Amino acid sequence: MTRIWLINPNTTRAMTSTIEACARAVAGAGVQVVGVTSDFGPPSIESHYDEAMSVPGLLAAIRRGEDAGVDGYVIACFGDPGLDAARELAAGPVIGIAEAAMHTASHLGRGFSVVTTLGRTIGRAEELAERYGMSRFCRGFHACEIPVLDLETDPTALKLVTEACREAIEQDGSDAVVLGCAGMADMCAHITEEIGVPVVDGVTAATLTVQSLVTMGLRTSKRGEYAAPPAKVYVEKA
Amino acid sequence: MTRIWLINPNTTRAMTSTIEACARAVAGAGVQVVGVTSDFGPPSIESHYDEAMSVPGLLAAIRRGEDAGVDGYVIACFGDPGLDAARELAAGPVIGIAEAAMHTASHLGRGFSVVTTLGRTIGRAEELAERYGMSRFCRGFHACEIPVLDLETDPTALKLVTEACREAIEQDGSDAVVLGCAGMADMCAHITEEIGVPVVDGVTAATLTVQSLVTMGLRTSKRGEYAAPPAKVYVEKA
Amino acid sequence: MTRIWLINPNTTRAMTSTIEACARAVAGAGVQVVGVTSDFGPPSIESHYDEAMSVPGLLAAIRRGEDAGVDGYVIACFGDPGLDAARELAAGPVIGIAEAAMHTASHLGRGFSVVTTLGRTIGRAEELAERYGMSRFCRGFHACEIPVLDLETDPTALKLVTEACREAIEQDGSDAVVLGCAGMADMCAHITEEIGVPVVDGVTAATLTVQSLVTMGLRTSKRGEYAAPPAKVYVEKA
Amino acid sequence: MTRIWLINPNTTRAMTSTIEACARAVAGAGVQVVGVTSDFGPPSIESHYDEAMSVPGLLAAIRRGEDAGVDGYVIACFGDPGLDAARELAAGPVIGIAEAAMHTASHLGRGFSVVTTLGRTIGRAEELAERYGMSRFCRGFHACEIPVLDLETDPTALKLVTEACREAIEQDGSDAVVLGCAGMADMCAHITEEIGVPVVDGVTAATLTVQSLVTMGLRTSKRGEYAAPPAKVYVEKA
Amino acid sequence: MTRIWLINPNTTRAMTSTIEACARAVAGAGVQVVGVTSDFGPPSIESHYDEAMSVPGLLAAIRRGEDAGVDGYVIACFGDPGLDAARELAAGPVIGIAEAAMHTASHLGRGFSVVTTLGRTIGRAEELAERYGMSRFCRGFHACEIPVLDLETDPTALKLVTEACREAIEQDGSDAVVLGCAGMADMCAHITEEIGVPVVDGVTAATLTVQSLVTMGLRTSKRGEYAAPPAKVYVEKA
Amino acid sequence: MTRIWLINPNTTRAMTSTIEACARAVAGAGVQVVGVTSDFGPPSIESHYDEAMSVPGLLAAIRRGEDAGVDGYVIACFGDPGLDAARELAAGPVIGIAEAAMHTASHLGRGFSVVTTLGRTIGRAEELAERYGMSRFCRGFHACEIPVLDLETDPTALKLVTEACREAIEQDGSDAVVLGCAGMADMCAHITEEIGVPVVDGVTAATLTVQSLVTMGLRTSKRGEYAAPPAKVYVEKA
Repeated sequence: MTRIWLINPNTTRAMTSTIEACARAVAGAGVQVVGVTSDFGPPSIESHYDEAMSVPGLLAAIRRGEDAGVDGYVIACFGDPGLDAARELAAGPVIGIAEAAMHTASHLGRGFSVVTTLGRTIGRAEELAERYGMSRFCRGFHACEIPVLDLETDPTALKLVTEACREAIEQDGSDAVVLGCAGMADMCAHITEEIGVPVVDGVTAATLTVQSLVTMGLRTSKRGEYAAPPAKVYVEKA
Repeated sequence: MTRIWLINPNTTRAMTSTIEACARAVAGAGVQVVGVTSDFGPPSIESHYDEAMSVPGLLAAIRRGEDAGVDGYVIACFGDPGLDAARELAAGPVIGIAEAAMHTASHLGRGFSVVTTLGRTIGRAEELAERYGMSRFCRGFHACEIPVLDLETDPTALKLVTEACREAIEQDGSDAVVLGCAGMADMCAHITEEIGVPVVDGVTAATLTVQSLVTMGLRTSKRGEYAAPPAKVYVEKA
Repeated sequence: MTRIWLINPNTTRAMTSTIEACARAVAGAGVQVVGVTSDFGPPSIESHYDEAMSVPGLLAAIRRGEDAGVDGYVIACFGDPGLDAARELAAGPVIGIAEAAMHTASHLGRGFSVVTTLGRTIGRAEELAERYGMSRFCRGFHACEIPVLDLETDPTALKLVTEACREAIEQDGSDAVVLGCAGMADMCAHITEEIGVPVVDGVTAATLTVQSLVTMGLRTSKRGEYAAPPAKVYVEKA
Repeated sequence: MTRIWLINPNTTRAMTSTIEACARAVAGAGVQVVGVTSDFGPPSIESHYDEAMSVPGLLAAIRRGEDAGVDGYVIACFGDPGLDAARELAAGPVIGIAEAAMHTASHLGRGFSVVTTLGRTIGRAEELAERYGMSRFCRGFHACEIPVLDLETDPTALKLVTEACREAIEQDGSDAVVLGCAGMADMCAHITEEIGVPVVDGVTAATLTVQSLVTMGLRTSKRGEYAAPPAKVYVEKA
Repeated sequence: MTRIWLINPNTTRAMTSTIEACARAVAGAGVQVVGVTSDFGPPSIESHYDEAMSVPGLLAAIRRGEDAGVDGYVIACFGDPGLDAARELAAGPVIGIAEAAMHTASHLGRGFSVVTTLGRTIGRAEELAERYGMSRFCRGFHACEIPVLDLETDPTALKLVTEACREAIEQDGSDAVVLGCAGMADMCAHITEEIGVPVVDGVTAATLTVQSLVTMGLRTSKRGEYAAPPAKVYVEKA
Repeated sequence: MTRIWLINPNTTRAMTSTIEACARAVAGAGVQVVGVTSDFGPPSIESHYDEAMSVPGLLAAIRRGEDAGVDGYVIACFGDPGLDAARELAAGPVIGIAEAAMHTASHLGRGFSVVTTLGRTIGRAEELAERYGMSRFCRGFHACEIPVLDLETDPTALKLVTEACREAIEQDGSDAVVLGCAGMADMCAHITEEIGVPVVDGVTAATLTVQSLVTMGLRTSKRGEYAAPPAKVYVEKA
């Protein structure tokens, strides 16, 4: 039995349930995916501040997972918060959803568009695209200006995101779309059908990437940069 | 049942058998992987000329696969020959083994080394790394100067490739190794054990990438560049 | 006497005649340019599939040229098909028309626009621009959506291409235009006159590049990657 | 009176004292520099994990600074932790010491070498060089393998760092050296004298960069990405 | 007493006076800034030709400064003419205003726009952005098409430049503006107020950069490329 | 009759004679190449200062050429001094020898090495390689540390340069060599014979590039950046 933890680094449990369902729908036989909600931190991640403050809760979840012998992890926020630190802590592979989604979309055509929630998060997405070598495939970043938690509650959200995707591929001349928020995972099938090009959701893409790595026995290299961090006594917050 | 064809674009059937076994060892439940040998062309691919001349045979195999309703394809030569043309022909996803191996290795650390057969193929590997956005992860390309078909017959080959991998990570300061030839697929486990860093074989990586794409319902975008090629009457070779 | 073969990698002899005339008009004294039509393959090259399938016919022509002691070759299709393989086979220099046109245009200003036939070929042109180091000069790629063979037969083609060139330089703020198809070679003078900026045709540019290389005694380096390919027995197509 | 806070994002007060002295030695008339030690987190930053865990303490210090009406901030760790989040929180400019050191060194020659503490931090330094556009000036990253806190206590540290700097410029052909740790700030003058090329310490460079920005009335743009983060109720750590 | 020469490489003294005042307004206590007008050359710099012809006069001024023991220099033209040669001649630091402005703007947000005088100078500005590693921050270059010397005399100039800045940030989605001409230095405060994002003037930015370098005891490295040029007998112009 | 001026931007007439002979040896029928020595400036170009000070003399020669109706120009110094300004002044094409040599070498293999005179000029050569898009082909820059004028007088120079070329291709794994100084033009044939890879001399390469451009009727675009510079009254040097 392969065990994958899908960590939602915000504290909103409803969102964890949604993405857990999406991940389970694609996981292979003999693979158990568990959605894990961060114990503390921001209810949604919509700024560099939110992202930075989400990382300790995420890392605490990774520590719990290591104690439990988990095989691999997905970080389910499109900013891929804490990815490097998580790779130091975990023995198995750790994949961010932006990482997985962009790599996946690069297999489907010459270029893709990213459609995300708030425009202020685009800088981070651009930075990740560069880090992963995916800038050459990213033809544009587009924001719907829908707050993350409204994706589930706003009845117009699905339509707005769909239209943003449609405009993005026209404007950018793209072959595919990457959804730029874990909260859009359950919209993926609908949008694909509506706009007629491949639409990539990072939650499922990352789950299958972790599953594949575990199947091949591949894990983060511990040869240098990602070796376990030196043990230290930290000063706790008062 | 998902059907994946693993196309060996050279005409050497023994090599097809070897890589088919490697791919089947990782394929998920409900996934059938079939090794397909090119009907005509070079017995091994060790030059730009060999590579160019392998493409028509490869594309003929893709056409047969389409007639048979195959779900996705792996191109099992590290030069990823004919990838763009294959994507035009196939309805489902097509992945090259250099493509899959490099992407996979990028998830495992800051940088990897590529270890391949002949030095004269390194130019092509560099070009592919750039195309896939993986140059930033590739820290070096190393040749063993073992001809492709000797990998299976030369009793010293395994040791030579293993030592080349060991030297490569030292010299490049790499976290992982990418094996630069389909013919090295069955050496992967041994080398990993010997050198203690993740070693990535493109045959298994590409098989699982195709499997994941099919699971997610993702295929090459047909919106523009990769639409089916315009039908034409070709002049046949006399 | 310097002998240059201008190889048309499609099988349409009328196109060979046109470009041969363009090349002869610029060739120096003592230089004989012969247009050579591919013996088999696609009648025009408008997809990755066409391009891949044109390469064996092109390489057969190079082989014939080597037997005849030809001094250098032009590959007269803007996708520069088979360039690397041709360099392995030929003793003398081999230049693609996209290669020559882009390099030439880079001498004439800060940036140029490429105007080509079908939009689906732009991905390949972008890839070539990157390969040749010319991306920094390419400000845009524009398609007329005129099929290659219609360039000679469609009475509105000249006007449409001219207008596409005019719009391209406006939109991109370019200093010059590169014509993105061998079939546009005979339009070059007219368009230059109409739009008032330098317009570069790759057929003539490549012919003169080969002529210059031969004059200087420069040929493809045979030190490594482009050495003659290893001799092998190929399986012939049944 | 301009007030600059020099935030040490680790919890070791002795280090704060040292760097505060270095910064005060260069600050202009009418500029008050105050060293601020993080209230909680790691005693030194030597891994991605340490760095991630230092950010909440750093951001708490920024919040206190904002309440106190501080004009600008230096983040005094060569990983520039939390820089983006700090820019969202602060009204005035925030500069990291890697950022300031690399920019400064770029004014002094064609290329510089970075000499840092542990090799495992080099990946982060490379990433920062790229982010700041400084990769083209960075000719090499070199580690002394001295833990951060040993810089002050190990009597051989100064000599080891000096020799590492000397070797770095020889090996890289560099014009200058960037010291890759706040804890090396007080070594700068000695090393400069010993090796005869400019040696840049980020603590002083960042202090003067902030001072200059405040003098010019320049602050982080609040137009988009760096606007104050949306207010939210966070779940506190149990 | 630190002495900085602010060299105007054109021969228009009124412009020197204006920029000297701007620089003096930001210089620290104990820093004397002197505006120096080139003795010969073009009255304004609006072409590559003007720029090239301004360099001998600029270098003559640097020679005079060295005789006078000047501590550092600003080259006050946005083309940063003669920067490398000046660095060879001068013992202290030399900074161009494009260099300083772009570096400074990179500290204030994710991207900036450059607003300059004539469109024909944009090619040079792009080249400088690349040289300094600042291309990744430059989102667009915009010209007002106001000749340099009209900036002071044309009563509509301030309004036109302000509107160009406003449009630039909208069009580019920028966080800040860089003024692309020394002659715009005294417009900076007004434009900042009007458009509500940080506006960077290179004259003040470069003055403070030089001041900071002198404070830190940092000067151009004389280790290799920027060593004093070999002494030679030149042929004088007849 | 096509007339090409080969401008030596230093004042050493003996060097002009040598390179004129090299250029004439390759020029086509009906092409007259005239070597022109700069009237004033440095006797050789070995620093940024020399280069900057050579430009006015070079531009004066271009002006004389324009009055004489010259068809195109070569700038015969490997720093390509004054290239942009010359393009503004001249109606016909202007090519630098570094530009032509690097482009030419890119046609001959995957990568080349540059072998030049003094190490301090390498920074400039790197900058030019980037400008021309040729960095991806440049695998290394190597200096012989022979002053420019000693190339003709030092009896060991030919041997030293030859050995530097031999070592360069070994060290860099290059396919070809670019000679980094006009003063090496007459060494080209000898070195080629000795080391067995293509060796490119920029003087002949640039002459043939200009000849080709003139043959095709191509000249610098006057649409924007390279339009004739605005006429102005300059202050003459006292």
